[in-house]
Amino acid sequence: MRMVDIIQKKRDGKLLAKEEIEFVVNGYKNDSIPDYQMSSFLMSVFFKGMTKEEVSWLTDAMVHSGETVDLSGIKGTKVDKHSTGGVGDKISLIVGPLVASVGVPVAKMSGRGLGHTGGTIDKLEAVEGFSVELTGQQFIDNVNKHGISIIGQSGDLVPADKKIYALRDVTATVDSIPLIASSIMSKKIAMGADAIVLDVKTGSGAFMKTLDRAKDLASTMVEIGSHLNRNTIAVITDMNQPLGYEVGNANEMKEVVEVLKGNGSEDLVEISMAIATQMSILGGIYQTEEEAREGLNRAIESGAALEKFKEFIQTQNGDGSQIEDVSKLPQAEYHVEAKAAQSGYISDIDAEDIGVAALLLGAGRQTKEDKIDYSAGVTLKKKAGDKVEEGEVIAILHTNKEDTKQAMDTLHGAFSYAEQQPEKRPYVYEIISK
Amino acid sequence: MRMVDIIQKKRDGKLLAKEEIEFVVNGYKNDSIPDYQMSSFLMSVFFKGMTKEEVSWLTDAMVHSGETVDLSGIKGTKVDKHSTGGVGDKISLIVGPLVASVGVPVAKMSGRGLGHTGGTIDKLEAVEGFSVELTGQQFIDNVNKHGISIIGQSGDLVPADKKIYALRDVTATVDSIPLIASSIMSKKIAMGADAIVLDVKTGSGAFMKTLDRAKDLASTMVEIGSHLNRNTIAVITDMNQPLGYEVGNANEMKEVVEVLKGNGSEDLVEISMAIATQMSILGGIYQTEEEAREGLNRAIESGAALEKFKEFIQTQNGDGSQIEDVSKLPQAEYHVEAKAAQSGYISDIDAEDIGVAALLLGAGRQTKEDKIDYSAGVTLKKKAGDKVEEGEVIAILHTNKEDTKQAMDTLHGAFSYAEQQPEKRPYVYEIISK
Repeated sequence: MRMVDIIQKKRDGKLLAKEEIEFVVNGYKNDSIPDYQMSSFLMSVFFKGMTKEEVSWLTDAMVHSGETVDLSGIKGTKVDKHSTGGVGDKISLIVGPLVASVGVPVAKMSGRGLGHTGGTIDKLEAVEGFSVELTGQQFIDNVNKHGISIIGQSGDLVPADKKIYALRDVTATVDSIPLIASSIMSKKIAMGADAIVLDVKTGSGAFMKTLDRAKDLASTMVEIGSHLNRNTIAVITDMNQPLGYEVGNANEMKEVVEVLKGNGSEDLVEISMAIATQMSILGGIYQTEEEAREGLNRAIESGAALEKFKEFIQTQNGDGSQIEDVSKLPQAEYHVEAKAAQSGYISDIDAEDIGVAALLLGAGRQTKEDKIDYSAGVTLKKKAGDKVEEGEVIAILHTNKEDTKQAMDTLHGAFSYAEQQPEKRPYVYEIISK
Repeated sequence: MRMVDIIQKKRDGKLLAKEEIEFVVNGYKNDSIPDYQMSSFLMSVFFKGMTKEEVSWLTDAMVHSGETVDLSGIKGTKVDKHSTGGVGDKISLIVGPLVASVGVPVAKMSGRGLGHTGGTIDKLEAVEGFSVELTGQQFIDNVNKHGISIIGQSGDLVPADKKIYALRDVTATVDSIPLIASSIMSKKIAMGADAIVLDVKTGSGAFMKTLDRAKDLASTMVEIGSHLNRNTIAVITDMNQPLGYEVGNANEMKEVVEVLKGNGSEDLVEISMAIATQMSILGGIYQTEEEAREGLNRAIESGAALEKFKEFIQTQNGDGSQIEDVSKLPQAEYHVEAKAAQSGYISDIDAEDIGVAALLLGAGRQTKEDKIDYSAGVTLKKKAGDKVEEGEVIAILHTNKEDTKQAMDTLHGAFSYAEQQPEKRPYVYEIISK
């Protein structure tokens, strides 16, 4: 087999064989295929796409390029959840304890954030003492005993994806549905999931700007799951503004507690419930969506979900009292009000701008080495569709930095105003399953 | 400027600026742009093409990536000629002395052959003593004094093209009209041509299999010439069978002499005349095609063209008596007849197969280090459209090798037969000018 022939085949829109795709992935991982052939191949995939079979073979080959996590020591169906990324996205922290409280084992491997989107682990580490430094056995024991555990990414999982992703980043081949889908799915499968619920974001603040693209990505991932025997369901949700009212680490943790208490914002509650419903059905706890919603609502009303959250935090050495009383979470020194530049309706809040504002306030990392200020962040006081008067507070900036000018400018840039009330967008657009 | 942004721009079908194209060519030549970004860019060009402006800027940037030949010391309009490559293609050797004999200065830089197509210099070197090892000054003096000279390629001409071509070869990006056109035109322009006549081959034995592709390539090159102030005309000619009857080095020289004597085969004469006509018009010798044809025919009938050929050979230390008496050219030991496998009409003679057969007999190089047997080659006895009886001689294999089985099999594989006489194909399809 010669790589140049495989590139040409893909370039000319011909179907690749399983063996050819394995040759590409293994050859690239082993350095026998050079970067310049791989980038040419990736660009051909960008233009010609991949069939469901091809992208499944690609995913499978990537999974087998490195180690895989063995979760067989955990009883029950392990349902993982993945988000394509958004600002204020604390859904994992809500649905994790929620579905664990009704009996779905949650064994989650998670990452830290870089740039304008926060990482789940960073948010958890806002709690004093919380740690994801667990041995594999502690992780498994935690899930078996407490129903939920989160561990940091470790091991040589999907090395081919790491190498391919780095190349895509510098060769304008990131934005390709089969490449995105195989990258996400290979990681989820390598992490040992039996079943997967995908939160595919769409809108101005998401990587998939249009609903059509989001549906395409979602159905590709669902097909991959089906081919590789992992029940997969995708929930397509809105990212035309940040999720909920809080962006940052400690303040997102506060909002998680609010939702688990039954007081969350409409968008957070609706999306969390949609995802938790699918997770608990895939986990075999409930048969129907109606049944699932009832059970999950009960878990919130009874306090079981919040209790599970505290139990999980404490099991991983976190200070449970900070969950009981969120005012004990890190507090910033300055709280600066941002005021509406005009009267009217908020028509849009650019999620990426809000993420960047929070980053500038200290809530995120610009480089891997940066330290996070857990107390920094943004609290939105208004969301899209809300009416405001000029000078009314639209957001509060939390920070320990004295100079907030750039963050404030960025935040103001995020808000668009309209004279008429804009049409309300759905929070959940569609649920895609096989 | 970032290469990744330029790749993305081309990928998304946006127009590149002159500065961006220069950035790509210079960056790649200077190693500041890595192979993997260049190959990704080239694949984007493969899919998205280039406008006439873009491909002209690309050509210009490639020309300026290295040295250029200064032919200003030669009086008159220097008209270069280029063929996209074929088997039995001795047109340059015919039209060179022909147009020189009517006053067009021919200052040609030429190459050696590799694989199944022969190089012009290899054919000339079949003549005892002939040499292309001239200094630049000798070359210019020769043209001024004798009207024609051929020199081997030297100097650091179009280094960006060399580097890009090597990359295209292993990344399935050879077959792209803008990349082919800019590669050819950058070399011709760097070689100092004032005007260019292109022989664009089409058919089963050509790189451009269809007339449409050939026209596309031809008009792209004509446009580049126009943008870069080099009058350029393309003649689209047939390569559905080898050109003329002779393939090899010494035997092609014999056939050149035959054509210059006025006895050539129909295809060679028609194509040579079409190209020489355009060259002598571009060279300012004649005003109309009719006038040109008359003048060129006179040069053949009077013996002036043949005389010019001998003069040229002798000026470069070749043995002129081998031109006067071509039986003095190298002769092979064995002459093996190939006989028709069946009765009927010859419908096709695959040019590439004939080229490979000649190569196997010793006429070409499989690697750069191989030595050529100038006496080896193939003489066709029949051409497409001819009627044959089973057992009739269709070709003669000339070689010094005892074992001709593989060459004979390859040669037989080249011939297709039909019961009905096939329709005659034109030799010259179209002439494309601005």
